[in-house]
Amino acid sequence: MTLRDSFLASLAMIVLPAVAHADTPEPSNSIAYPVGWQEWATIAVSHRTDNNTVRAILGNPIAVAAAREGKTNPWPDGAILGKVVWKSTTLEHWPAATAPGEFVHAEFMFRDSKKYAETYGWGWGRWLGQSQTPFNEGPQACIACHTPVKDRNWVFTEPAFFPEIK
Amino acid sequence: MTLRDSFLASLAMIVLPAVAHADTPEPSNSIAYPVGWQEWATIAVSHRTDNNTVRAILGNPIAVAAAREGKTNPWPDGAILGKVVWKSTTLEHWPAATAPGEFVHAEFMFRDSKKYAETYGWGWGRWLGQSQTPFNEGPQACIACHTPVKDRNWVFTEPAFFPEIK
Repeated sequence: MTLRDSFLASLAMIVLPAVAHADTPEPSNSIAYPVGWQEWATIAVSHRTDNNTVRAILGNPIAVAAAREGKTNPWPDGAILGKVVWKSTTLEHWPAATAPGEFVHAEFMFRDSKKYAETYGWGWGRWLGQSQTPFNEGPQACIACHTPVKDRNWVFTEPAFFPEIK
Repeated sequence: MTLRDSFLASLAMIVLPAVAHADTPEPSNSIAYPVGWQEWATIAVSHRTDNNTVRAILGNPIAVAAAREGKTNPWPDGAILGKVVWKSTTLEHWPAATAPGEFVHAEFMFRDSKKYAETYGWGWGRWLGQSQTPFNEGPQACIACHTPVKDRNWVFTEPAFFPEIK
């Protein structure tokens, strides 16, 4: 190991853990960060060709159970839907496959028909970029975009079929 | 309820639970069905424009930990990668979003460098359709397609970035 390599290795030890294991981010639109969403199960995936992003639509256990059982209009209180968004790229060894590139943000809908009655029964939060910086411009921006699906309990996602096995 | 509706409802009660909660499928290529994969966390997503499918790439906890830590060449023994495949369709209320349609199959790579030494350290299994019928034509069909990524430990998937939070 050269002196330069040694220096870079030391730097990596100092810098990388801080990036890789950050503290819990501050709230977005007054909603607490949904710790643990990175391990949630899948409800659907999507590829938006209008803004060149791909998405994993995840859910907490209440949301996943509701999705798999088709109980989604309305979704049950306690359900949290997560949309994880990356800029799209193509796989090096299979260019016909569009896949996740740069991480953009993770955004969430928190179902509570009473607590969030003024915003159609949902809390709306988003954390931006690798730093997970909270979005704090209020829920109206989210709601405006979701208006075309107000009759679907404000949710665009159509849950994918998953075979249920005992 | 008409007699016809009543008959159809009775039929649904007999038939639907058997489809929705099926017994564990038989092995594929002599490999046992990876019970519980429907709840696994996400490693990546993809949209294959060459065969009009979208995919969720999931992993068991060993695989997800390896993916998030970048320890994927080779993947650790015990890792299982799952590729869940649907024909692509578009969302009714956002046609620029390509999303899951008809379920096609779920296919898996089971990492065990000793047990599967003869097939490059991986077991290769696939279960077809909503019935999860095992594919039993042997691993060679899988391996042939994966040959372009033999230097990536036979894995096409490039794990997506997920922000790690304490």
